[in-house]
Amino acid sequence: MDSIAKEKLRNHFQELISLSDEEFEYAASFYHQKHFKKHQFVVQEDQLEVPEYFVVSGLVKAYSTNFEGKDHILQFAMEDWWVTDYNAFYNGGKATINIDCIEECDLLYISLEDKDHICSEIHKLEHFFRVKSNKGYVALQKRILTLLNKDASGRYDEFIRLYPSLVQRIPKTILASYLGVSRETLSRLGK
Amino acid sequence: MDSIAKEKLRNHFQELISLSDEEFEYAASFYHQKHFKKHQFVVQEDQLEVPEYFVVSGLVKAYSTNFEGKDHILQFAMEDWWVTDYNAFYNGGKATINIDCIEECDLLYISLEDKDHICSEIHKLEHFFRVKSNKGYVALQKRILTLLNKDASGRYDEFIRLYPSLVQRIPKTILASYLGVSRETLSRLGK
Repeated sequence: MDSIAKEKLRNHFQELISLSDEEFEYAASFYHQKHFKKHQFVVQEDQLEVPEYFVVSGLVKAYSTNFEGKDHILQFAMEDWWVTDYNAFYNGGKATINIDCIEECDLLYISLEDKDHICSEIHKLEHFFRVKSNKGYVALQKRILTLLNKDASGRYDEFIRLYPSLVQRIPKTILASYLGVSRETLSRLGK
Repeated sequence: MDSIAKEKLRNHFQELISLSDEEFEYAASFYHQKHFKKHQFVVQEDQLEVPEYFVVSGLVKAYSTNFEGKDHILQFAMEDWWVTDYNAFYNGGKATINIDCIEECDLLYISLEDKDHICSEIHKLEHFFRVKSNKGYVALQKRILTLLNKDASGRYDEFIRLYPSLVQRIPKTILASYLGVSRETLSRLGK
């Protein structure tokens, strides 16, 4: 792991917990770094042994492709976000979604075994990841309510409110797919 | 907490972790029990200080009501499930959803402060709730993909596959709302 990634990860942990140098170095030793080019796959459907990723820089999208070849965007992940096929990561088995790079990316990754290990060794890290998971759960509940409750215009407004910095970085076709609206509808809303 | 509720909670923890009698009694001392009648509200929109609930017996639904008065079902919770307005629970502020009882219910509840306290005192509990939160996250990801990906028939089949024991306990109008399909469509599918 290079020094930039290390600093990013450390600052990220420090938002919620305070680790000693020794604790951080120990935890960091279980993370590995990989560089991805734009459009490169991070996780591919049917892949086995999916790790969890932390975005040091760049932007990815996680999506599933249905039988008709249509993509449905599950989530985006940019700097300081965690992303993977969480079903495959926690429950084992093959990935059922794809993750690829909207921008060139620097990612850290860790296996489930190593993540469980550092959480069991360092209680503060178990706390960190419990809180992170809770936050993720709340975000997904909000997304479900938006999908059930809001029309195209409401979904677009909500996305801009929650992720103002993301709107400029995401191609319109992909944003339309995330919102579950047509490309034409999105163009009208974006004006 | 009565002995039935205590045994339910202990068995539930033991699915993932092994607590000593002392540890369990200590944790259990922070939970309180409350009985709810059918149709009674557990959480109401705009309520402050929302605790987290554990279902000892019965069945509840969590839902939001939009401006037109239409209900959108976020989730159900039956025996051994945890439920609350997680946004209000973790982030404070007023509840934005309602939770009420489809059946008469016995529930345990705990405040965020007390939950954080027992997690900080007993590392195994922090682990338990991290794993529970991760499982909840995976379930919500699946629900989002179902909402984006599947038509009425696919959503219904998926629900029956995941929650066979729930289908008989949920009124059809409410199940239709959860699936985001009309009552008429659901009747056709149920045949």
